[in-house]
Amino acid sequence: MNIYDVSKKAGVSIATVSRVLNGNNNVSEKTRQRVLSVMDELGYTPNVFARGLGLNTMKTIGIMCTDSSDVYLANAVYYLEQELRANDYDSILCCTGTRNSTKKKYMELLISKRVDGIILVGSKFLDTHMEENAYIIDAAKSLPIMLVNCHLDGENIYSAQCDDETAVFSVTDSLIKSGRNKIVYLYTSTSQSGLKKLSGYEKALDLNHIPARTEFMQLCHKDILRAKEYLNSLHARGISFDAVVTSDDSLAVGALKFAYENHIRVPDELNIVGYNDSILARCTEPELTSIDSKVEALCSTTVNTLMGVFAEKHVPSKTLIQAELIVRGTTRL
Amino acid sequence: MNIYDVSKKAGVSIATVSRVLNGNNNVSEKTRQRVLSVMDELGYTPNVFARGLGLNTMKTIGIMCTDSSDVYLANAVYYLEQELRANDYDSILCCTGTRNSTKKKYMELLISKRVDGIILVGSKFLDTHMEENAYIIDAAKSLPIMLVNCHLDGENIYSAQCDDETAVFSVTDSLIKSGRNKIVYLYTSTSQSGLKKLSGYEKALDLNHIPARTEFMQLCHKDILRAKEYLNSLHARGISFDAVVTSDDSLAVGALKFAYENHIRVPDELNIVGYNDSILARCTEPELTSIDSKVEALCSTTVNTLMGVFAEKHVPSKTLIQAELIVRGTTRL
Repeated sequence: MNIYDVSKKAGVSIATVSRVLNGNNNVSEKTRQRVLSVMDELGYTPNVFARGLGLNTMKTIGIMCTDSSDVYLANAVYYLEQELRANDYDSILCCTGTRNSTKKKYMELLISKRVDGIILVGSKFLDTHMEENAYIIDAAKSLPIMLVNCHLDGENIYSAQCDDETAVFSVTDSLIKSGRNKIVYLYTSTSQSGLKKLSGYEKALDLNHIPARTEFMQLCHKDILRAKEYLNSLHARGISFDAVVTSDDSLAVGALKFAYENHIRVPDELNIVGYNDSILARCTEPELTSIDSKVEALCSTTVNTLMGVFAEKHVPSKTLIQAELIVRGTTRL
Repeated sequence: MNIYDVSKKAGVSIATVSRVLNGNNNVSEKTRQRVLSVMDELGYTPNVFARGLGLNTMKTIGIMCTDSSDVYLANAVYYLEQELRANDYDSILCCTGTRNSTKKKYMELLISKRVDGIILVGSKFLDTHMEENAYIIDAAKSLPIMLVNCHLDGENIYSAQCDDETAVFSVTDSLIKSGRNKIVYLYTSTSQSGLKKLSGYEKALDLNHIPARTEFMQLCHKDILRAKEYLNSLHARGISFDAVVTSDDSLAVGALKFAYENHIRVPDELNIVGYNDSILARCTEPELTSIDSKVEALCSTTVNTLMGVFAEKHVPSKTLIQAELIVRGTTRL
């Protein structure tokens, strides 16, 4: 017995039943009486514990992301919302920023709102200090925690990740096999996923017996200008390089700007590889070769797994999805 | 008397109180007994009408947007969430797509969830056929409706808009005054805001006694390639032009790609103006002159107005915010 049955039987919209329940005045007295008598007849009483007015669940999932205006995270939020909606779930969005104390506060807040599950988007939710992740393990005691593109071992924690390490390994290895051997790696963060990408770069060098050079690995955040200026500084110091691999398209845009300023021909003299295959990759001239990190597949897997958890099915606690290299004009591979 | 008082008095987190209320097993029997006895002592009973467990409101706002992965809308959703959060409100996000029937369904759904207000983001929620907007006027009978960058007259409907018409008028007029007189206008949609921008373009031509040419006004949606190909088709037909004004940065990117392909120098031979001053404007070479449509200000105004409505203050039903031209390398103004 729920609000939908009342609405159907009374021949009014759910919104009208809701208005009657809320004592809202925008309902005619006649309609109000009809709705109330149907409630009586059906023996309907709003659930005192209030899980969504007579339903046994809020049918609401909390989505936490550090910054929903980030191009990658905005896409993830979009796909998650669509998938959840297709399963009749609402999503409450929380943009947490990157401070641990704020993330914990929002997690607590969402739990107090009694959402049915929480999805953490992006690997910026995991700290390299494991004790800082205790709040996630703790939250998983109350409800399922879904991680999009990061992984944490723990009961009731599920993850879907892109195989970022293999993706960066493969493209770096391909660049080496095609004759490049002075490859700069620019990265956006030292998150779990960020470190895997970096490790993929280092492994490819190692496998090909090319020593890793510290000046060839640089943290630039998602900052186009910082990427450009770092490459300018290498160039000014007479340090030459023939390829730039990045962990985000924004840094590849910066690399292209460096090449433009210094009249370096791309891809003849310099190969550039972006990551995430975002709209930025199609804005530049030439367009960016970029790694498609399969955000849509990660999000649909996450929601499918969550629905499996709710249905008490057996679901994998960890899913790994392969990235795909999209070759455009900034490489000759 | 609410859940916070219970949590404080019992010396446990809100999440724990919530778990006890939900009959969740992840609470020790000792804690459960303490929470229940505090509830008894304080005479706490969960509100049967369930507005957020003993609070008188859900403190939740519905945000509807057609596509949260769109760069402009993603920024708006981000700023709205941040502003709402700062006012202790949650937001439930709905990505509706562009079909009217789906928009109506989501509006109904949000009302049935008893949100405290609904924010519609972008002018794609208004139809040129006024009868198609009746669902918005109808919804406003139950709760405040906030429109971000569109306007609809009606009780309990509030709007914050960028003065898009003046923005396009001014930049077109400046281009004419700087010597351009064959100005193409590429636009993304015929939404309310879209039509205002187009009208700004036409007014600037009219004021300067330049006849409007139908082949100089073209709908391209947010499609980089379509913009490029349309300009290619004009060029192939020998129709020359010396400036391209657009309603979105993506179309300005397309115009720049057209210039690159045809070896036309920007800005010497062709001036290009984007709109929204998004990250795309900083990806191209040269970077795009673009109109900053002040999405952050629109969003903070929207949330401030909504909070004013809740506080029963006098608030303006319509706010107009001026855009700002950001001059970069694609124009000589």
